[in-house]
Amino acid sequence: MDLEDKKFYSDKWFSYLQAQICNHFEKIEKDSKSAKKFISTNWSKKINGGGGTYKILRNGKVFDKVGVNKSTVSGIFSKKFRKNILGAQKDGKYWASGISVVAHMKNPKVPAMHFNTRFIVTSKSWYGGGIDLTPSFKDKKEEIYFHNNLKKVCKENNRNYNKFKEWCDKYFYLPHRDEPRGVGGIFFDYENKNWEKDFRFVREIGMSFIEISKKIIKKKMRLKYNNADKEKQLLKRGRYVEFNLLYDRGTKFGLNSGGNTQAILMSLPPQAKW
Amino acid sequence: MDLEDKKFYSDKWFSYLQAQICNHFEKIEKDSKSAKKFISTNWSKKINGGGGTYKILRNGKVFDKVGVNKSTVSGIFSKKFRKNILGAQKDGKYWASGISVVAHMKNPKVPAMHFNTRFIVTSKSWYGGGIDLTPSFKDKKEEIYFHNNLKKVCKENNRNYNKFKEWCDKYFYLPHRDEPRGVGGIFFDYENKNWEKDFRFVREIGMSFIEISKKIIKKKMRLKYNNADKEKQLLKRGRYVEFNLLYDRGTKFGLNSGGNTQAILMSLPPQAKW
Repeated sequence: MDLEDKKFYSDKWFSYLQAQICNHFEKIEKDSKSAKKFISTNWSKKINGGGGTYKILRNGKVFDKVGVNKSTVSGIFSKKFRKNILGAQKDGKYWASGISVVAHMKNPKVPAMHFNTRFIVTSKSWYGGGIDLTPSFKDKKEEIYFHNNLKKVCKENNRNYNKFKEWCDKYFYLPHRDEPRGVGGIFFDYENKNWEKDFRFVREIGMSFIEISKKIIKKKMRLKYNNADKEKQLLKRGRYVEFNLLYDRGTKFGLNSGGNTQAILMSLPPQAKW
Repeated sequence: MDLEDKKFYSDKWFSYLQAQICNHFEKIEKDSKSAKKFISTNWSKKINGGGGTYKILRNGKVFDKVGVNKSTVSGIFSKKFRKNILGAQKDGKYWASGISVVAHMKNPKVPAMHFNTRFIVTSKSWYGGGIDLTPSFKDKKEEIYFHNNLKKVCKENNRNYNKFKEWCDKYFYLPHRDEPRGVGGIFFDYENKNWEKDFRFVREIGMSFIEISKKIIKKKMRLKYNNADKEKQLLKRGRYVEFNLLYDRGTKFGLNSGGNTQAILMSLPPQAKW
């Protein structure tokens, strides 16, 4: 398959997955007697090509704020930025398509969730992505369930789970606080062994995110909580903001590739405390 | 006067000013029938020398959260960071003393305030600092009062007010939002014409901050406001967080010089929304 086809199918998949995730999350809201729906916004890049669609559901009964963002952009990185990007050193050219999801929950007992997959093309081409959880309350059973499911998908697709898990722990870490952002998950990048198999892995990780997130949310969304629990969640969200603005590569990539600010910063919680 | 004396007097001045500012702000709280006081925390740098004292007053009647941070640190910058610092390229050595204040107000009609002055020594030595306002509501009269007072102090000390004002507008700007953080003020750096005169300017800017902030606060602290006003303030604070974590040089300097995280991030508001 030639590169243009790989780009075409990746882009289509991410759009399909975006619709699927939104449908599933709206169904969860509906089952909780909430009529809240995603509001969809299209945007186009001002310089160079591409654009995207970000869908945000706010102030639901289950989701306090959840953003599902899909974009496909291309262009030329600035000289300063291109040195950090594999295969872009020479001419700075890139094409990138991806989906990212961040869900901040109303109920502080339900962990915040993050999922992302992307296909990047410079003079090289590869998939990257990951899933991770940020609970405000420790739940060992939930952690084991979560990690085991990710392990399963990795194994079925002949991926190095341990490497991806360690990468995730290392990546979602706040050095200035000396604390992890959450309980980790998987993080992968530069996957370019065999395109068909890589693409299959990326699709399965996407479908797994839907299954895993539904299971975790449904189990806890009706748990009772008090003001102190909510306070704990808001402070945890403050750390989430610190990570995303100080360290997150996706945020930096977005702001450096002329992305849409609303779409990039949809990851920020609806409310946070310090 | 030799360099060690300049360091000694700068350090002492910043400590004195910290005490003065805290006294004045506690008096404002007291006049509002609040017993809230600053809580003081000392910290020491783990690597290399120095430390500081940060004082925070939370949940007052006037101040929602105000931090007054004084620190004096020294050490050697990492190779990566030193290239950004004047006079530190060769060996990375630095000594720095300074005070910074960030006040987030309970009443959304009262602007958030920021003040900072510092003495930095590498192979060069200089003063820097600034004052700026971040209102959630437009108030042309207040802006004029504020800017005119800063102009006056600059003129009396033979400083280039227009340059400092433009620098401030340029610095406190969020490119990804294409909007300024607030209404500006002054920002200066690399002041090293004549130490006695530079030091005098720095002292007068400090005393002016006390006078200006008291006047602005007292005029507005009893104004009525509603939930929509508060909401507007919380969204403005979200922008404040974005600026401080994405762009602020002081935050980067602090995190790169082994500073105390609580002290560096005391600038973050008690609560913000997106």
